[in-house]
Amino acid sequence: MDVIESTTQVNNKGACGGFLMDLHKGLKSKVMNVAKCIKKTGKDDPRRVIHSFKVGLALTLVSLFYYSRPLYRGFGVAGMWAVLTVVVVFEFTVGGTLSKGINRGCATLLAGALGIGAQHLATAFGQSGEPLVLGALVFILAAGATFMRFFPRIKARYDYGVVIFILTFSLVTVSGYRVTQLFQLAQQRLATILIGGATSMLVSIFVSPVWAGQDLHNLVASNLDKLANYLQGFEQEYFHCSENKENSKSSALLQGYKTVLASKASEESLANLARWEPGHGGFRLCHPWKQYLKIGALARECAYKIETLNTYLNSEIQECLEFKCKVEEPCKIMSSESSKALKAISSSMKAMTAPSAAKCHIEKSKTAAKLLRITLETISLDDAELIAVIPIATIASILEEITKSVEKVYESAHELSLLAHFKNVESNNVSPPEKPPQILHRGIINPLVDIDNSNNNNNNAGQIEITIHDIISCESSPEKVENAPSNSCAVVNIIVCH
Amino acid sequence: MDVIESTTQVNNKGACGGFLMDLHKGLKSKVMNVAKCIKKTGKDDPRRVIHSFKVGLALTLVSLFYYSRPLYRGFGVAGMWAVLTVVVVFEFTVGGTLSKGINRGCATLLAGALGIGAQHLATAFGQSGEPLVLGALVFILAAGATFMRFFPRIKARYDYGVVIFILTFSLVTVSGYRVTQLFQLAQQRLATILIGGATSMLVSIFVSPVWAGQDLHNLVASNLDKLANYLQGFEQEYFHCSENKENSKSSALLQGYKTVLASKASEESLANLARWEPGHGGFRLCHPWKQYLKIGALARECAYKIETLNTYLNSEIQECLEFKCKVEEPCKIMSSESSKALKAISSSMKAMTAPSAAKCHIEKSKTAAKLLRITLETISLDDAELIAVIPIATIASILEEITKSVEKVYESAHELSLLAHFKNVESNNVSPPEKPPQILHRGIINPLVDIDNSNNNNNNAGQIEITIHDIISCESSPEKVENAPSNSCAVVNIIVCH
Repeated sequence: MDVIESTTQVNNKGACGGFLMDLHKGLKSKVMNVAKCIKKTGKDDPRRVIHSFKVGLALTLVSLFYYSRPLYRGFGVAGMWAVLTVVVVFEFTVGGTLSKGINRGCATLLAGALGIGAQHLATAFGQSGEPLVLGALVFILAAGATFMRFFPRIKARYDYGVVIFILTFSLVTVSGYRVTQLFQLAQQRLATILIGGATSMLVSIFVSPVWAGQDLHNLVASNLDKLANYLQGFEQEYFHCSENKENSKSSALLQGYKTVLASKASEESLANLARWEPGHGGFRLCHPWKQYLKIGALARECAYKIETLNTYLNSEIQECLEFKCKVEEPCKIMSSESSKALKAISSSMKAMTAPSAAKCHIEKSKTAAKLLRITLETISLDDAELIAVIPIATIASILEEITKSVEKVYESAHELSLLAHFKNVESNNVSPPEKPPQILHRGIINPLVDIDNSNNNNNNAGQIEITIHDIISCESSPEKVENAPSNSCAVVNIIVCH
Repeated sequence: MDVIESTTQVNNKGACGGFLMDLHKGLKSKVMNVAKCIKKTGKDDPRRVIHSFKVGLALTLVSLFYYSRPLYRGFGVAGMWAVLTVVVVFEFTVGGTLSKGINRGCATLLAGALGIGAQHLATAFGQSGEPLVLGALVFILAAGATFMRFFPRIKARYDYGVVIFILTFSLVTVSGYRVTQLFQLAQQRLATILIGGATSMLVSIFVSPVWAGQDLHNLVASNLDKLANYLQGFEQEYFHCSENKENSKSSALLQGYKTVLASKASEESLANLARWEPGHGGFRLCHPWKQYLKIGALARECAYKIETLNTYLNSEIQECLEFKCKVEEPCKIMSSESSKALKAISSSMKAMTAPSAAKCHIEKSKTAAKLLRITLETISLDDAELIAVIPIATIASILEEITKSVEKVYESAHELSLLAHFKNVESNNVSPPEKPPQILHRGIINPLVDIDNSNNNNNNAGQIEITIHDIISCESSPEKVENAPSNSCAVVNIIVCH
């Protein structure tokens, strides 16, 4: 028994000690987690730390109204409205602060005037009728304004203003019933709100500003980069042209596009805020922010296709290697040139120039898509199973659709560069001019001199039968064609007669 | 000259009259547009009109504090905080109102207590040190709390609380410096905020409540319905089995899925609000709202694939009709059964029962996917061009992926039904039990009795060569197989020896 008891005690002690140890460890790990989270949040976007200090600064500035006696004498208790305004108006972006500040100012003015009018109207109904009339007016205006908040346009731009309108109108009519010096109160309140709003706006604009417009511009450009990265990684991963060491790099490239799928909400809110901002950096007051939404929508369309493409990347299905070899070249060109085109669009957006450098990549990817069609038209698959061909064919087909999407993105980005008067960099500076075109494929031409037939079929007189014996990439081929630089290409229109 | 002048005058008059007419017309059409917009907004969701009246009601109720003299004597000017609280706290959903109300209440209490503490601390530093200490404290707390708003978890649930915390702390410390009767003021303010918050919450809950949880539940279910509609419409449209009259109907079915692509933001915000709601309807307090986000994410994955599928629907490319005929049957079954499965999941979600009815549709679509593989393995395309086969093959391949997505949605919905303890409707009531399986295809079996070979190849002893001469759908075939009901099917495992 003793042995058992002592064991139990030891166990209890051990359990208790263990529990405390666990608690200590748990607490330590929690604190560590919070610290990590703080560090990560700050590191992800250092402007967040600066923003926090800016809010502190603006609040401390308006507190002066309370601390300094002469100012307090002027404004009295109404000084607290300055503090309140700073807290609710100060937003991360300049656009957000301006939107809320202007909304608040205008709504307060309008509602204050209406409220005083309502007050005067109500006094006409006598002392017993006054509260009834005021109550009815508050009810009607609050219900009407609340309903207006459901209109999508008002929701997007003036939601805060409508809330402040209801708030101020109710406060003025309700408090006006008691406070006799209504005008003086309204004046004080408006002045303090203006001071709070102005402080917020000035600090927001002049102390390391965060422009919503710049953020939107960067977001759309970086989304295009992410899509480009995927296509680059896909080429490396699917066609196994990367070594093991690079594989981890390519799989990192393959992840980024997922955030593009859900970028709609943030793009729209940034575009709404960007409207309120004055000209800054390369952006004028009436910069075509809507066009960014168009580019964003097209980028998402492309991302949806990439998402479908991605399901085929890791699926372990039998593949016909012979067929894969035959379509590999156009597929590789389509994905790499689309990737380069997206990168070019993105970098020209970042530099605020016309995306002319992307044009030649778009053309190359379109040529590769044509080449794919020609390859598919001429290919014969007598001994290959259809089931092993289909996954590759599907990938090729989706890549073709992605090529089309990228072209649409290019057109939309081009339109933006026109609307926003981006600098028109001479395409000569960006892409080398008039290089001899690239040789993608070699084949052996069998001239078919069939005198009997050529006499009979006059319609086919201008046509030659071309039999492609093998498709060899110039880069993978050990022997180079004379006089043709390794990066040049020749687009040959092939007419095949069956 | 006179003629010309008079003509000009007439023209001017006409132009002026025309301008006035245009202005009148323009004004009339604008007013009509606004009226239409109001009507549409109300018709889209009649709860919006009710919500507007609820806000009016709550505001009128708290105005009583000002209108009735005895209450005014108790609270004084602090009564306006009740009005302010109602305006900023009252949200469309119960969850929104509760979240804001509870956040506001807790934050005010905490910040009020901290503010009074800070006030006492500051008095220890003498009259000249007090404003400095208070200013520093406001700066530190405001900056720290603002930084906390960037943490995603706090942003999602407690954002409003943090704003109110900063607001109240600043107001209490700043105004405490002037107002001597701090405790009484704090007490009055807290009481009026509680009254405003309670009024909002009670009106929100008891006057035709809008539950965020119910909305989330309906949104996810209706999104599944939209995907099901697309698949149904796709079958009708692509395989031309609908008549002209129905075509317009099917093209309407094809549009709905687009909203599913961008449903992430609204689903997440509803899930965040639903957490705050008490049990209502069939939902308990701790209903697994997170699981809806999982189902929603899987539904979006399916929608991305549908988006890609949709690009192939209207593209005018040459198609190999022979091949289309051969894969038509499994493709039709895949899309129609996936559609039925999604509809069954959606309707069982709406009825809050386990989605057992969907199981048999999932099985049928999986069988069809297997059938597609078998068809593709056995098909020979000697005379068909690959280029005409690929679009159809791509569609078939994407449909197969959609089938897999739908199965994942089913599994996730099943998990939800377990977590939320949905009623387990006997599958017997929903799907007829143990029917003889459906005959999808008929073929002629040629037993291959090759005595010489069978003696030599012992490995192939158990295998029979089956040649499928034709694939005929039971429904489209005029002659019915005896003893087999029209809705039954036989799944035959075919081993093909080459």
